[in-house]
Amino acid sequence: MSARDAVTARDAVTARDAVTARDAVTRSYLDHASTTPPRPEALEALTKWMALPSADPGRVHEEGRIVRDAIEEAREQVADLVGVTPRQVIFTSGGTEAINAAVWGVTGGGGGGGAASGGPILCADVEHSAVRNSSARAGDVEVIPVSATARLDTTWLSERLASTTLPRPALVHCQWANHEVGTLQPVGEIVRLCRESGVPIHLDTAAATGHVPLHLSELGPDLTSISAHKLGGVPGAGALIIRRGYRIAPFVLGGDQERGRRGGLEAVPALVAFGAAAAALAADDQRSLRVEAARSQQHIAALTAAALSVDGVEVIGAPDAADRLPNVICLGVHGVEAEPVVIGLDRAGVAVHSGSACSSESIEPSPVLEAMGVDANHSLRVSVGWSTTEADVAAFAVAFADVVAGLRALRS
Amino acid sequence: MSARDAVTARDAVTARDAVTARDAVTRSYLDHASTTPPRPEALEALTKWMALPSADPGRVHEEGRIVRDAIEEAREQVADLVGVTPRQVIFTSGGTEAINAAVWGVTGGGGGGGAASGGPILCADVEHSAVRNSSARAGDVEVIPVSATARLDTTWLSERLASTTLPRPALVHCQWANHEVGTLQPVGEIVRLCRESGVPIHLDTAAATGHVPLHLSELGPDLTSISAHKLGGVPGAGALIIRRGYRIAPFVLGGDQERGRRGGLEAVPALVAFGAAAAALAADDQRSLRVEAARSQQHIAALTAAALSVDGVEVIGAPDAADRLPNVICLGVHGVEAEPVVIGLDRAGVAVHSGSACSSESIEPSPVLEAMGVDANHSLRVSVGWSTTEADVAAFAVAFADVVAGLRALRS
Repeated sequence: MSARDAVTARDAVTARDAVTARDAVTRSYLDHASTTPPRPEALEALTKWMALPSADPGRVHEEGRIVRDAIEEAREQVADLVGVTPRQVIFTSGGTEAINAAVWGVTGGGGGGGAASGGPILCADVEHSAVRNSSARAGDVEVIPVSATARLDTTWLSERLASTTLPRPALVHCQWANHEVGTLQPVGEIVRLCRESGVPIHLDTAAATGHVPLHLSELGPDLTSISAHKLGGVPGAGALIIRRGYRIAPFVLGGDQERGRRGGLEAVPALVAFGAAAAALAADDQRSLRVEAARSQQHIAALTAAALSVDGVEVIGAPDAADRLPNVICLGVHGVEAEPVVIGLDRAGVAVHSGSACSSESIEPSPVLEAMGVDANHSLRVSVGWSTTEADVAAFAVAFADVVAGLRALRS
Repeated sequence: MSARDAVTARDAVTARDAVTARDAVTRSYLDHASTTPPRPEALEALTKWMALPSADPGRVHEEGRIVRDAIEEAREQVADLVGVTPRQVIFTSGGTEAINAAVWGVTGGGGGGGAASGGPILCADVEHSAVRNSSARAGDVEVIPVSATARLDTTWLSERLASTTLPRPALVHCQWANHEVGTLQPVGEIVRLCRESGVPIHLDTAAATGHVPLHLSELGPDLTSISAHKLGGVPGAGALIIRRGYRIAPFVLGGDQERGRRGGLEAVPALVAFGAAAAALAADDQRSLRVEAARSQQHIAALTAAALSVDGVEVIGAPDAADRLPNVICLGVHGVEAEPVVIGLDRAGVAVHSGSACSSESIEPSPVLEAMGVDANHSLRVSVGWSTTEADVAAFAVAFADVVAGLRALRS
């Protein structure tokens, strides 16, 4: 069914019904780490937004003030989720723009062949492409080594930051958790090392925010990027969190929106959905987030057990669940290529992802897995979220065993 | 009423009802040039999107393919509105990002103190702040002179492009129409001059798209930026249109979205709304656009006549309606400051804008009006759109006369 047919078939569906209809689809979506469906609270906020007047929130008229209030409420909600003050939150069009803005803001952009401070950007190969590519544009990149589980080497970093002979780094990147294998990074230690040496530190929390509690003001990173659609907002929103007192140049230039730190009319509908999703997670002193994380961890444990019961399957990344995000598992499947597994699961109604080149618009296999020394062409990423049910887990267990057995039978 | 109260009061409103409820609000919104309310077709598309599966459109699973179809349909709709092929359309987070991307793409960004080609960027002071500020960052800016009606001086440009002694320009900017006074620019001649001299030309059509027909492939500009929310989409979407065969470096770096030309997960809800709004305007060989433009022109004529019937009021910008956008008029009001007029009109239920510093988050009066030699502190911009009614026009006529008379009485 094409999107066009789908739209026509559901012509009369209202927003509220849509949430219900979504649940009735007999598919098991286990690719939440790519993007998770908007939470009911986010869709509700979007629906309420439709009833608000439309206006530029920078205007002084009543319509403008109503929209301004809606944006500032969203800003408070996002700030609350990650433990910062609203003034620290710069809204962006997404995590990718936030990352580009962080790199630009610290290094003065690119085009000049080097970071503004003259020093290199320290960045592991397991960082997201937005981090790697925007850094490569901005200046020289020095690679932070990682372990076979994708964990950044803090001993190396500590020595590098203490070096009196090598050029002082312009910026250090550290993801909160890896987006492909879920490995949690030693964020606290890395932030401490950077702050002690006075080198700016940027945290990419796109994969982690909403899945593990973040208390950014206590931690103290200079810059933190967040994506809305990975925590149950809608695509088209994100945030760059700036430490109090830290100043950076804006990336997207235009009007004086976001207190002069990001030009362009605010993406109001996506922002109110972002705020509502954040508020849903932060509710009851982040109890909602912790309950959901615990349930995700159970789902992942069950999925993993089912997968490992098939011969020649292993976990890629940290073996201990405590060292990983609660909602992601990366599996290595010996003897079959990931591409037919992904396609076979899709035909069986189960959507998953792979680090192999087949799985995305990229023509290259995952550089993350390559950096870990893992064969991306046999990797499978299964990820759960707020809407995952035990039936989804069961559907995966059955389909995975069938598809792998079928493919192996073809080969033998 | 704060946004929060408004949201609670309208809790049960569904998307469809919202469109109806919107009409029942007893306000006259005459600030469509800042942002125009989403068209019913855009809200309908957004509502339908809520019923679609959520997925990364770069994934190979069914959910991903459905979202991919929805984005590509939106791309066709936007391409159709402005007369280009879908492959020429790069979706962005809005007009401002599209403009930043155009400047970055041609000049290689900034930080290096000059455009990549070494030549200056030619830019009039009546361009939007996104154009002016992103250009100032990228290199040296040479100002294109304008007339007292904000029209770019083509004689000057022709001579400048023909100069054999001055450095060859890196880029020329030309807005299709001015966003504050509505002046239509000599776009055809400027594109021709630039293309003949081989200097890249960027058109900012944010104020114009959807209000006047655009046939970009016939015209042939290298780069064109478009904003969704100014034509009845929702905030958070825009497009950069690239001439076939023209290549530029991406501004927002990340994954391989938009065929490697813009990283970051696509803002799917805003894009489907953008596409639906574009399709509504392009319907019946752009007849819908032309009918709406004619109606807007009538509304503006009636508003202007009412305003001019008050003593000491004049039109700022091109006196002849044929030289302006159909939906915008800028008025000069002698003897009173714009700020109390805007506030007085707002209290009377009429929302308008002013180029004075009071009217936006900017602390400076409009540089556009300054470039025209006009006193921004007495300027009032009134703009209409698809939802404007004769009752709105009548409400403005009564309120404007009352407010100006009241303020003048206070001063005497």
